[in-house]
Amino acid sequence: MERIRLAEDLTFSRVIHGLWRLAEWNYSKEEILQLIEFCIEQGITTFDHADIYGGYTCEALFGEALALKPELRDQIEIVTKCGIKLVAKNRPEHRLKHYDTSRQHIIESVHQSLKNFQTEYIDVLLIHRPDPFMNPEEVAEAFTQLKREGKVRYFGVSNFKRSQFNMLQSYLDFPLVTNQIEVSAYNLENIEDGTLDLCQEKRIPPMAWSPLAGGKIFTADDEKAIRLRNTLEKVKEELNATNIDEVLYAWLLVHPARIMPIVGSGKKERILSAIRALELSMDRQQWFDILHSSMGHEVP
Amino acid sequence: MERIRLAEDLTFSRVIHGLWRLAEWNYSKEEILQLIEFCIEQGITTFDHADIYGGYTCEALFGEALALKPELRDQIEIVTKCGIKLVAKNRPEHRLKHYDTSRQHIIESVHQSLKNFQTEYIDVLLIHRPDPFMNPEEVAEAFTQLKREGKVRYFGVSNFKRSQFNMLQSYLDFPLVTNQIEVSAYNLENIEDGTLDLCQEKRIPPMAWSPLAGGKIFTADDEKAIRLRNTLEKVKEELNATNIDEVLYAWLLVHPARIMPIVGSGKKERILSAIRALELSMDRQQWFDILHSSMGHEVP
Amino acid sequence: MERIRLAEDLTFSRVIHGLWRLAEWNYSKEEILQLIEFCIEQGITTFDHADIYGGYTCEALFGEALALKPELRDQIEIVTKCGIKLVAKNRPEHRLKHYDTSRQHIIESVHQSLKNFQTEYIDVLLIHRPDPFMNPEEVAEAFTQLKREGKVRYFGVSNFKRSQFNMLQSYLDFPLVTNQIEVSAYNLENIEDGTLDLCQEKRIPPMAWSPLAGGKIFTADDEKAIRLRNTLEKVKEELNATNIDEVLYAWLLVHPARIMPIVGSGKKERILSAIRALELSMDRQQWFDILHSSMGHEVP
Repeated sequence: MERIRLAEDLTFSRVIHGLWRLAEWNYSKEEILQLIEFCIEQGITTFDHADIYGGYTCEALFGEALALKPELRDQIEIVTKCGIKLVAKNRPEHRLKHYDTSRQHIIESVHQSLKNFQTEYIDVLLIHRPDPFMNPEEVAEAFTQLKREGKVRYFGVSNFKRSQFNMLQSYLDFPLVTNQIEVSAYNLENIEDGTLDLCQEKRIPPMAWSPLAGGKIFTADDEKAIRLRNTLEKVKEELNATNIDEVLYAWLLVHPARIMPIVGSGKKERILSAIRALELSMDRQQWFDILHSSMGHEVP
Repeated sequence: MERIRLAEDLTFSRVIHGLWRLAEWNYSKEEILQLIEFCIEQGITTFDHADIYGGYTCEALFGEALALKPELRDQIEIVTKCGIKLVAKNRPEHRLKHYDTSRQHIIESVHQSLKNFQTEYIDVLLIHRPDPFMNPEEVAEAFTQLKREGKVRYFGVSNFKRSQFNMLQSYLDFPLVTNQIEVSAYNLENIEDGTLDLCQEKRIPPMAWSPLAGGKIFTADDEKAIRLRNTLEKVKEELNATNIDEVLYAWLLVHPARIMPIVGSGKKERILSAIRALELSMDRQQWFDILHSSMGHEVP
Repeated sequence: MERIRLAEDLTFSRVIHGLWRLAEWNYSKEEILQLIEFCIEQGITTFDHADIYGGYTCEALFGEALALKPELRDQIEIVTKCGIKLVAKNRPEHRLKHYDTSRQHIIESVHQSLKNFQTEYIDVLLIHRPDPFMNPEEVAEAFTQLKREGKVRYFGVSNFKRSQFNMLQSYLDFPLVTNQIEVSAYNLENIEDGTLDLCQEKRIPPMAWSPLAGGKIFTADDEKAIRLRNTLEKVKEELNATNIDEVLYAWLLVHPARIMPIVGSGKKERILSAIRALELSMDRQQWFDILHSSMGHEVP
C-alpha cells in the first residue's frame, strides 16, 4: 500500500485504521490481535486512537492485544490524542465535559497512554480539539519534554482551523505533522473554510475522520443524502466498484492533498472497501459530479 | 491614463477592457479592431479575456481583429484565464461543468489561447476559479514551464480567497501579480471577507469584475438597489457627473488598493464613463455614504 | 497589581480604566483627579481614551484634571484612538459618521489629543476601527512621523480582524502592540473567529472592551443572558466572590492570552470588583461551564 511521508523518518499507511469504537465490538484480546494482523497484512500499519475513546478504555484493549505479540509494535504507527476531559465513571473529578491542554495534563495523559498501550513510545500525539483556553507555551513545553524523553516522536492536531493551527505552530520549534479533520463527500466544511488549503500550504497530509459521514449517506433521507447517494450509485457503476463506500473513499484518495482516510470498522469486508478504493481511477468529472451533488449546485 | 505597476516590466492601464460578451455583440473583425483602437486611443491598453468566454469563441474573435493590424500587439496587454471546463458543443468531452487545473490542461489551454489570439505570448494568465481539486505542484510546474518558454509573462488568479491565494503562492517561485475579484458598491463580499485586505498586504493590485454589479443597480427594485441608486444619484449631482456609472467606477478608483475596474461594454459611450470617472474627486464622506447605502446601515 | 509587558519599555496595568463615559458622570476636575489617584493607588495606571469619547470632550476633561497634579503624568499610561469621525456640533464639517485614517487626519487628531491631555506624549495610539478605505502607506507614514517626533510612543489597533491586522502590520517597521477587542463571556465573537488566536500568535496582549457586555448580562432576559447569569451566580458562590462582575472579570483574567479588561466605571466599588477578580482562582471547569452557558451547548 502507498505510504505517506509525514516527516524524515515517519510514514503512515495511506489507509488508517481507527479504533474509536473498539470497546463496542466486544472483541476478545485474540480477536483484536487478529484484526491488527489482518490490517498489517493489508498494508494498514497506522492505528488511530484517543485517550477518551470508549470512555477511556480503547487504548488499553488495544494494548492488551498487542502484548500477545509484542514484536508487532515496530511494524505499526500508533496515533493517539489528548486534551478532552469527559464526564466518565473512571474520571470522577470531571464535573463537566471540558478541554485541558495544560502542560501537566498533556504529560499525564501520555504517561497513561503509554501504560495502556504497553509501549515505550507514541508515534504521533494529537491535540484532540482546539482549546479556547489554550496556553500555547504550556503545550510547547509539554511537547518538547515528551519529544526529548522519547515518549512521543511527533505531534499534530485535530479539528484545528487555520488561525488555531498557525497560532500553536508559532510556539513550536518543530512542525506539526498532521491535522485530523472531518472531511467526506457529505461534509465539505473543511474544504470550504480553507482548512484543507492550509494543510496543502503547510505540506501537511491530513487524516480524515468520518470519511463515510458516519453512515448518514447510506441511511439519511434528507435531500442532500438522497442526491449524493444517487450520484455515488451512478459513479459506482461507471467505476465498476463493489459498493458506494469505495466511491466515498476514492473521492478522498484521488484528491491531491494526500488525505488519509480513517476506517473505523472492525469488519474485514468494510476495511477491504477502503483498500479496493485505492485502485479506483475516479476522474475529475466524476469527482465534481459528487461534489455538485453534495453542494446542491454546480461550481460557479 | 494612469498606469498600474504589477511587476518590474509590466503595467496595466488603470481601466481595463473586458471581452466577456464580445461574441454577443455580433461585431465584424473591422468593428472589433475599431473598438481595440478606440480603447488604445483612450489609454486603455489592457484587455481581459478567458478561454471560455462566448463558449470558447471570444479569444479567436479578438485574435482575428488583431491580425488585421499586428503592430498593435505590442501596444496592449492580453490577460486570459483557464481552469474552467464548460459544457459546450465544441467541447463534447465535457459531461458537466467542472474545473481543471492540471498541468496538462493549463498548458493545452494556453496553447489554444495563443493560437486564438494569433500571438506569441500572453501577458498575464489567471487561474479562473479556486479549484477544490487543485494540485498546486502541477499548477507550479505548468506556470514555470510556460514562463520559461516565453508563452506567458506573468501569472495571477481570479476569485481566490485568502487561504486559496496563500496556498497556491506557497508553491510558486515568483509572485502572483493580481487577483481578479468581483467588487462593486453593490457587492462588498471581497471587502468584508478580507480578500481585498490580502491584496493590499501582498501589494497586488486587484482587477474588479462586475464593477457595475452587472447592471443590477440600475434596474433591480430590491431595497438595497433602491437605497444605493438614491445615494449614487445624490453623489452624481454633487460631483457633477454625467451618470451613476461614473460614480460607481469612481467609488472603486478612489480606493487606495489600486483597483482596476474591467469595463465589459462594446459601446464607446459606456467605456468613456469609466474614463471620465478617473477625473471625479469623490471625497471620503461620499465614499462612506455609498458604502452605508449598500450595507443598509452606517459603519459601527 | 500585575503588569503586562507590551514592548521593551512599556507595560500596562493588568486592569485598565476606560474613560468612555467620563462626560456623562458630570464630575468636577477635582473629582476626576480623585478618580485618577484612586486608580493609581489600586495599581491601575493605564487609562483608555478616544478622541471621540463624549462627543470629542472626554480627553480634555481628563487633561484638565491631570493639570491639577502634572507629576502624575509619568505614573500613568495614556491610550487614545483616532480614525472615526462622528457627526457632532463641534465638528460641523462631518456630514455623516465615517472613518478617516489618512496621514493628515491621524496627525491632526494626535495634535488635538496632546492639547486635550496637556501632555507631551501619548503612550499608545490605536486606530479605532478597521477602515475599509484605509491607505496603509499613509497610516505607516503618520505613525513613523509621530514616533520620530516623540509624540506617540507605540501604536496598536482596535476591532481589527486577522486580515486587517496582518495587512496594516505588513506596512509598519515596528510591531503593533495591542488589539483592543470586544470580548466577554457574553460576546465570544473574537474568540470564535480567530481574532484572539492571532493575538496569541503575534504575542500581543489584547485589551478587552465591554468585559461585562455593557451590562446586558445583568438585565437582559434573553435565553443566553439567563443561562449565563445562572452559571455566573453558581460560580460566584463556588469562588466566594462578592458579585458576578468579579466572575466575569475573572473569566477574562484567567485566560492565557493576557487579556486586559477595561473597566469603564467611575464608581470606586465597581473598579474594586475588577481588582478583586485578580485574586479569584477560577478553575478550568468553571471557565468551561461559563463558556457552555454562553454558547448554549457544551464543547464538541
